[in-house]
Amino acid sequence: MIERAKIRLFVDHPLAAGQSVDLTREQAHYLFGVMRLAAGGRVALFNGRDGEWTSEVVVSGKRGGVLMCLGQAAPQLDPPDLWLMFAPIKKARTDFIVEKAAEMGARRIVPVLTEFTNAERVRVDRLQAHAIEAAEQCGGTFVPEVAEPVKLGPLLAGWDDRRIMFCDEALVGRDAALSGDGGSWAILIGPEGGFSEAERTRLHAMEQSAAVSLGPRVLRADTAAVAAMTLWQDRLGDWG
Amino acid sequence: MIERAKIRLFVDHPLAAGQSVDLTREQAHYLFGVMRLAAGGRVALFNGRDGEWTSEVVVSGKRGGVLMCLGQAAPQLDPPDLWLMFAPIKKARTDFIVEKAAEMGARRIVPVLTEFTNAERVRVDRLQAHAIEAAEQCGGTFVPEVAEPVKLGPLLAGWDDRRIMFCDEALVGRDAALSGDGGSWAILIGPEGGFSEAERTRLHAMEQSAAVSLGPRVLRADTAAVAAMTLWQDRLGDWG
Repeated sequence: MIERAKIRLFVDHPLAAGQSVDLTREQAHYLFGVMRLAAGGRVALFNGRDGEWTSEVVVSGKRGGVLMCLGQAAPQLDPPDLWLMFAPIKKARTDFIVEKAAEMGARRIVPVLTEFTNAERVRVDRLQAHAIEAAEQCGGTFVPEVAEPVKLGPLLAGWDDRRIMFCDEALVGRDAALSGDGGSWAILIGPEGGFSEAERTRLHAMEQSAAVSLGPRVLRADTAAVAAMTLWQDRLGDWG
Repeated sequence: MIERAKIRLFVDHPLAAGQSVDLTREQAHYLFGVMRLAAGGRVALFNGRDGEWTSEVVVSGKRGGVLMCLGQAAPQLDPPDLWLMFAPIKKARTDFIVEKAAEMGARRIVPVLTEFTNAERVRVDRLQAHAIEAAEQCGGTFVPEVAEPVKLGPLLAGWDDRRIMFCDEALVGRDAALSGDGGSWAILIGPEGGFSEAERTRLHAMEQSAAVSLGPRVLRADTAAVAAMTLWQDRLGDWG
């Protein structure tokens, strides 16, 4: 395979040998204004489906430009079928959770509103942009989708057979159910104030759920998200 | 035990029943200016040794004040003998790593300068303040010590028999050595550019070291720190 380029760009465009890719104004500004690339410069492209392609700058302009795909530089690496569901918290920490979900290999990110969620407005487009940036910076070829926020109650009411790894602060010791062959899972991280008693009871009663302890210390939601994804990837995911 | 207070404060002072604690100007400003506490208000105190004590405001002033310990509200919870050694990165992410080390239960935090470390100046006093704040906010009773930065070469040259969990990006699959009874360990996280070839060779050759993979995706140093501490705590630490 062709050598990987250092500057990486997510594009919503098919990638194949000889394929030309038109740049948006923002992309042109980033590549030619910020990164100072010129004609002949190399850019790594990925679109979430076709792996990573090394491309060359063919046209560079202030308001646009064209890249040409030279060859594939890395295969597509899709994450396991893992969702990360979390209660939105302060802006900076929510951004952080989205970044970490993209790095750790979650397929879908779902903001959930629980009883104790202090719901600031969640800007899905901004979070999606964060997920793209994280994939660009970490060499990933997949970008998790950020879903619209949903209330936990209705979400669980319509739940299918996807397993839920439910991180319960009040739990001591780990449920043995977190082993096996993987399959479809969702990690659920509560808000800073924890789940309500009604939510905990409901989650424990669901046959899809596996309650998991994250140790004897209280973790912030962003820490809990990374720790839970680590445990899942280590036991059921693609870290083996 | 007595009910835990919500507002938490680390103090470098012995804690015992009936013990009075003089406040510094900064602590008085925080409790009485920012948090608006008055005489009779409750504050949770910990000093890293004596567990958590619930105290009451006896004297409140603009430049000082006095608290009185009423009773112990939580026992001392010391972390396992785990050090987190990491190459300092950008300021915000270094702060983040220190915060996470305090939350996840590291006993000592050691900034190490590797060949590829872009060493900004490390302000140990600022990082130590971050570790204290993390413990205050997460209900911890222990504060990890932040050590002075050291160069990796000399550090390894004088290394004793403490085991090293060495997170090697270039490794696929996990070393079987990460199991057993715990004991004294240090996690070593490389800089954004990874370890140099000479450093990798040296680390692999040390009989104290266990090379560990953190999955098929490239993780940022801050993510790697949380993931590595999770694996260690899960397998060898106090999460069981």
